[in-house]
Formats: sequence, C-alpha cells, structure tokens
Amino acid sequence: MAAAKEIPYKIYLKESEMPETWYNVRADMKNKPAPLLNPGTHEPMKAEELAPVFCEELIAQELDNETRNVPIPQEILDFYKMYRPSPLVRAYCLEEKLGTPAKIYYKFEGNNTSGSHKLNSAIAQAYYAKNQGLKGVTTETGAGQWGTALSMACAYLGLDCKVYMVKVSYEQKPFRREVMRTYGASVTPSPSMETNIGREINARFPGTTGSLGCAISEAVEVAVGTPGYRYVLGSVLNQVLLHQSVIGLEAKAALDKYGIVPDVIIGCAGGGSNLGGLISPFMGEKLRGERDYRIVAVEPASCPSFTRGRFAYDFCDTGKVCPLAKMYTLGSGFIPAPNHAGGLRYHGMSSILSQLYHDGYMEAISVPQTAVFEAAEYFARCEGILPAPESSHAIRAAIDEAVKCRETGKEETILFGLTGTGYFDMVAYEKFHDGKMTDYIPTDEELAKSFEGLPKIG
Amino acid sequence: MAAAKEIPYKIYLKESEMPETWYNVRADMKNKPAPLLNPGTHEPMKAEELAPVFCEELIAQELDNETRNVPIPQEILDFYKMYRPSPLVRAYCLEEKLGTPAKIYYKFEGNNTSGSHKLNSAIAQAYYAKNQGLKGVTTETGAGQWGTALSMACAYLGLDCKVYMVKVSYEQKPFRREVMRTYGASVTPSPSMETNIGREINARFPGTTGSLGCAISEAVEVAVGTPGYRYVLGSVLNQVLLHQSVIGLEAKAALDKYGIVPDVIIGCAGGGSNLGGLISPFMGEKLRGERDYRIVAVEPASCPSFTRGRFAYDFCDTGKVCPLAKMYTLGSGFIPAPNHAGGLRYHGMSSILSQLYHDGYMEAISVPQTAVFEAAEYFARCEGILPAPESSHAIRAAIDEAVKCRETGKEETILFGLTGTGYFDMVAYEKFHDGKMTDYIPTDEELAKSFEGLPKIG
Repeated sequence: MAAAKEIPYKIYLKESEMPETWYNVRADMKNKPAPLLNPGTHEPMKAEELAPVFCEELIAQELDNETRNVPIPQEILDFYKMYRPSPLVRAYCLEEKLGTPAKIYYKFEGNNTSGSHKLNSAIAQAYYAKNQGLKGVTTETGAGQWGTALSMACAYLGLDCKVYMVKVSYEQKPFRREVMRTYGASVTPSPSMETNIGREINARFPGTTGSLGCAISEAVEVAVGTPGYRYVLGSVLNQVLLHQSVIGLEAKAALDKYGIVPDVIIGCAGGGSNLGGLISPFMGEKLRGERDYRIVAVEPASCPSFTRGRFAYDFCDTGKVCPLAKMYTLGSGFIPAPNHAGGLRYHGMSSILSQLYHDGYMEAISVPQTAVFEAAEYFARCEGILPAPESSHAIRAAIDEAVKCRETGKEETILFGLTGTGYFDMVAYEKFHDGKMTDYIPTDEELAKSFEGLPKIG
Repeated sequence: MAAAKEIPYKIYLKESEMPETWYNVRADMKNKPAPLLNPGTHEPMKAEELAPVFCEELIAQELDNETRNVPIPQEILDFYKMYRPSPLVRAYCLEEKLGTPAKIYYKFEGNNTSGSHKLNSAIAQAYYAKNQGLKGVTTETGAGQWGTALSMACAYLGLDCKVYMVKVSYEQKPFRREVMRTYGASVTPSPSMETNIGREINARFPGTTGSLGCAISEAVEVAVGTPGYRYVLGSVLNQVLLHQSVIGLEAKAALDKYGIVPDVIIGCAGGGSNLGGLISPFMGEKLRGERDYRIVAVEPASCPSFTRGRFAYDFCDTGKVCPLAKMYTLGSGFIPAPNHAGGLRYHGMSSILSQLYHDGYMEAISVPQTAVFEAAEYFARCEGILPAPESSHAIRAAIDEAVKCRETGKEETILFGLTGTGYFDMVAYEKFHDGKMTDYIPTDEELAKSFEGLPKIG
C-alpha cells in the first residue's frame, strides 16, 4: 500500500484548476464528421432549417467544426461547481483483488443526483434554451438518466420540461419518474397516444416496449408543435460531445498533476456522450500526433452499432422526422431486446466517434449482458460504488484488460469512465441475482433486415 | 457571487488533512452518560456480560468514557479514503433562493453507495468483528441505510451479514433488499417467523409492520444463538457516536481552513448517530468552555423522543433482550405510525446525547412530515441533491433558521448535516407529490400509555 501514499485514492481538482472552456475535438479532425442532411432533399442542413427543433446557440455549436476551445458561460461554470469536479479515483481495491500489476483509474460521474454524467450537457442545453427566452424543452429518455439530469437543470433555471420515456424503462424504473417529478418535470411513457407518431407506432407495433428512436420522434413532434419549446437531446449530437468534454478535460488535468499517462482509455458507448467526452482531450493529442493512446469503446452485444453496424447515413429516430446523420448504425428500425437493462439501447452512434472509429483512431468491442453484471457486482463489492449497467460495460472491459496485464506482467495504466450509479437498476440486478438474466445477441439475419431500412443517399 | 470566489462551493480536505483519530466526546463530559444496566439485576453491565452479544473491541469502546482521541486503525483509514473526505458544501444556491443573509453549509454524507453516513461506523464494526476472527454479524435496519452500509463493509472484508429489516421499510423499499443482496447479505423482513421473539411479536400484534425495536430483538437473538456471530448496531450506542465523530472532525477541519465558525449546528436525530458525530468536536469545545455554539437536534413530530420523551432507563428493544440504557425515550413499546417515511423511527436516543440535552448543552425541536418533504423538494430543486427524508428534517430546520435571519438581518453561519440521499424513498416522495402524505403526531394519551412500560429502576 506504499503507492497509496503517492497517488491519493481520489484526485480532486481545486475550483481554480477546473476547465473554463470545452474542447471541440472536431477542430483537430482532418476528416470532419459528415454533416446532418435534410431528410427530404438530402442536402446538408442549414442553421435556419434546424431552428424550429433546436435552440439557436446549440445549432451554432452543432455546426462549428473549427473552434477548438469554447468558453463555458459563467452561469454554467457556477452550476458545475455544485457537483464538479468529479473525482478521479485510483481503484486500489480492485487492483488488489484482481492481483494485477495494472494501475486502474476511473473518472466517476455518478456523484450528483441525476446519477450520471448527463448533467454536464443538460445544464448547458437548458441554459441556452433559457437564454433564448424559451418557455420549456422536450426530450426523450431511455434509462432515465438524461431525463433526470434535464429535469434538475430545468428546475434550477425555471424552465418547463416534458420528458418522453422509453416504455420499457418507464415500467422497469417506476421511481425514476418520481425523481423527475420532484424536479417538476412531466413524464410520459413512449410510444404514447399523445402524438401522431406515437399513435402510429402503437398501431403498427401493438404492445411495443418502445425505443429511444420512438421517444425522440415524439419529443421532436411536441417541440415543433408547441410555441416557446425546443427539443434537446442527451447524446449522439456534436454539441453534447462538446459539453461532455469537461469529463476528459478534468480527468486529464488530474492525471497531469501527478504525471500519469494512461496507456488505454475505456468508455461505454450508447450514443457516445460519455465516451466522446472522456476521450476528447486525449484524442486531441492523438489527432495532433503529440501522443498515442489506445482508446476502446465498449458496447452491448445486444446493440452493437460499432462492431456490427454499417457506417452510413441513417435516420436518428424511428419516426424519421429528424435530420439524417452519418454514423455507425444498426438501422433506425432496430429495437433492442426489452430484457436488456438500462441505456445503450440506441441504434446509432455519434457522428464524431463514428468518423474517428472509421479512420482507425479507436477500437470497439461488444460484451454480453450477464458478463457486464458479473463485473458490476465484482466492482461494487470491492470499490463500494454500485455502478449503472451502462457504466459496467466499461468496468467489464477494464477488468479484462487488467487480467491480461496479470498474465503478461505489463504495468499498464488503465483509465475508464464510470458514468453513473445503478440505484434505479435494481430490477435488473434482481434478475441477475435470481439467474433470470439472459444474453440477447441479434442474428445476422435480423441485422440484414434492419439494414434494408437505411435511406439511399447519393 | 463575489463570495463564491473566496469560499469554494465544496471544501474538500486532502488525504493528509483527514482525521487519523476518532474523538470521544465522553472524555470531556463532566456528567458521563449513564452506564448500560443488566436488565435482570439492574447492575451496570460488565464487559464479560456484553461479550456474547457484541465484539470485544467494540465493548471496550462502548465502556471507555476517558480516552479522548482513539486512533483509527490503518485498515479503516484506507477504507475511508475510498469515499471520504465527504464534501462540505456552501449552499450558495439555497441562500440565494431564500434571499437570506445567512451563510449555509452542509456536510454531505450521501456520496457513497450506501447513500448515508452509516458507512463510517459499519466499516469500523465489521473491521473489529473480522479482527476477532468472527464469521459474521447480524443487525437490524430501518430505512435500509444501515443495512446497506453494513453489507458493503462486510463484502469488503469477507464477513457474512444477516440483516433484519423493519417490515414497513422492506415493503416500501423493495430495491434496498437488492442492493444488500448485491453486496452478498441476507435480508429478512421483521418481525419474522424465524426467531422466538419474531414469532411472539407476530402473535401478539398480528399484521404489525414492525419497528426498529422488534428488529433489534431478532438480530440479537440470532447473534447470541449462532456460533461465530455477534450483533452490531448502527446508532444509539456510544461506540457508534465515536466512529461517526469523523463527520464532525472533517467538517471542523474544513471550516477551520477558511476560518469559518458556525453559529448554529443542526442535525436530524433518530438514534443520534449522525447528530452525535457531526457535533462532537464542536460540543467538545463547548464542554471545555473554549467556544459556544447553538446545537439543535431535529426529530420527527411522529417520534419525538427528545421533545416529548422521558429521560429514564428503558429497554433498547421491543423484546427486552438488550441491556437497559438511560436515555430520552418514548417507551420501548412505542411504534411510530407506518405512514412515516424512512428512518428516525426509534423510540429512544443515544445516552450521550440524552445526557448532553438533559444538561442543557443542546436544543431539540420536532417537525411534521409534510413540512419536511416541502423542504426536501425545495432543497433538491436548488441544490441538486435529492435528500433522504431523514436528512430533510435538518434541511427544514436550517431553512427556517435562514428565513429568521432574513427577517432579523442577522448574518448567521449555519452548519447542518445532510446525512444521505433519497433514491430509495421515492414511494414517500410520490405520496407527497400526490397529496397523500399525512402528519401523524402521537397524542399525550398514547405517550402516557407507552411510558407505563418503562422499567422501574432503583
């Protein structure tokens, strides 16, 4: 335990050491992420076309591939100080239990009521909506973390918040709704009967348990149809990765304080908000040729966009009302098995990360659900924190990497993102404890059928 | 917001600034807390009489009224580093929303998976049990925070853990059980049919929803009857207040760094573990005549031990198998209304705090449940953290104090203990949102009847 004295269990930054700008990784990408396309004309979306759906300043951020460092408005910095900096933890106990020579660090984003990193972008998006004089925002939520985060941010700023929650999560996580209500939000299970697209999806797929793609369509429809409202999204978009860069910037600042350089950086990937944020400054160094890192995306075997998807333009939502995005996708009609726990159920992936993966700047692996929960429980028992199923994908990969080090004797430094806590995932944990959890892996035929729905571009 | 620059939102201590000894407030008390009595002979309990129930080292701590500073074993210090120091937060947002000149600080103990301060004593008790070569421990839990904390600590040390959970909480908080299971504990709703006392209580009070007093009796019966097991308790006992002194020691160290001296210190009080821990070093200064503070205990109007109880010897458990303790008590037969949310349902109060209250060193107030939830929601919306119902008693009192300051213009510095998070209390929050929460206040007749059960001592 001598090392424990040199590197503290948790490295916190002082407020004066916290980042005051977000980092826009696009500025350092030679191949920029492909632009959003108008679903009708297949032409790149212009700011004015996006304006009925998104907030003005957020559109500017979405389209800006050049500005490297974006100042964080003072109001957002003030809010960040309420729960940031998040701790960078040295996983001494995990290392010891694994008997590995690897040094494992995790950046823990679960230390706020929303329970995840989502708050980093929620407060930014709510701030810009408020600044534009809007009355409220609409959104979708899967596992409920984004909805909770947005509700908190809206309560803080006095904005109305309408959340469409994927039905399977709504039912598996009844208490999530109450948390959002505590923050004054309204929560509707999706697909609902309140929107055209919801009624259509319910009619076409009776008894459907929903998907993020459906919920996005509903939230967009309501935003566009309600004066004073815009739609906000918790992942996938460039703007979200920009805001989430605060995770990586803090992590890097904390590591730099102690001269620590990670060999491998691991993050779970659903739409890419956490992974993109965590890796951003490291990826920047890699893109600029200053330093090399292994960067690994971990996705669920049940929803394997990177590892089994196509790199193509696709619809972002099931209802096909959103712009087309070029990304690794399983097809917008792909709906992951309802037995899959928590988030990471989105059919697509951030355009930025998709381009970086396509260009060989990162790796991706997929892991099955039961192996993820084994890792979650193992981690909880030694590190104390009860991890979210999403985060546990990264834990699984980090443990596997550390075990490899035990075998090779390599003293690798591993950094992974622990995105949140699993307090609202106890139904899934219960299934796991009772041996009732199964692994769902889509067949090649299923995926081939889903790919048929990809739009034909150019 | 200029002040925000001087005092950070959160004051963290460096690992080198963390306390390395617990503080035993009894060493500075002129009137020591009354000793535990043998329920048969009414003579002070000797260590050897306590040995079948409690761990040896913990008995020594329980009986030691003299040692002022007790070194924290290295293994416990290492575990503390996994989640401590806990943040001391300046509630800038709450102050601003209240428009008060008061400066409000809270010590937040919810930043660990158990979700509360209970872990501070859980790891200590589990450590001493392990050190004694025991196989496992038994305990009771009310709201589930203590049971969760103990499960975590036992998982970490490889000890077996049997938890008896008050039936009303078991039913209102089904997911708590799964958290404890994740950490490998067994959880039984109390009163159960597995123990003599459980069967007896079930027969006498059919359909009873249980109480901490019942659950303690069951856990003690199982500990005494199972080789290699002892009983551990999360509150009330002197040893618990000793371990929890880490809260106050850290809070004081953080305040001292910035030269801040609180005028009033507020904590919620059930059995006294949080309040006793939070106030300990401040109370020490007060007892030694070095400095004066107002110290306020806040208890639920439904279970008002301090404000309406008797200062007398009483049974610690419903089954009357435990030693007698002198304390403010509502009578060991008192069972709070089942509609009351969460913890703070214990009929008695720490002997140390009872003596200090009796001697005029602290004040006590009681607050009704709906007012507590109003404060909880108000706090959540501005400070972000979703507070536990228990903690929200302190929030209520702190808000009321800050509002008084607004009226008088007094720039008081308020410190309160935010003991934990409310993630598992969403059933209660839902009741509150739906207007179905009621306030239960026992009548004088009810209390008089309960006092009849007090044992006649000397």
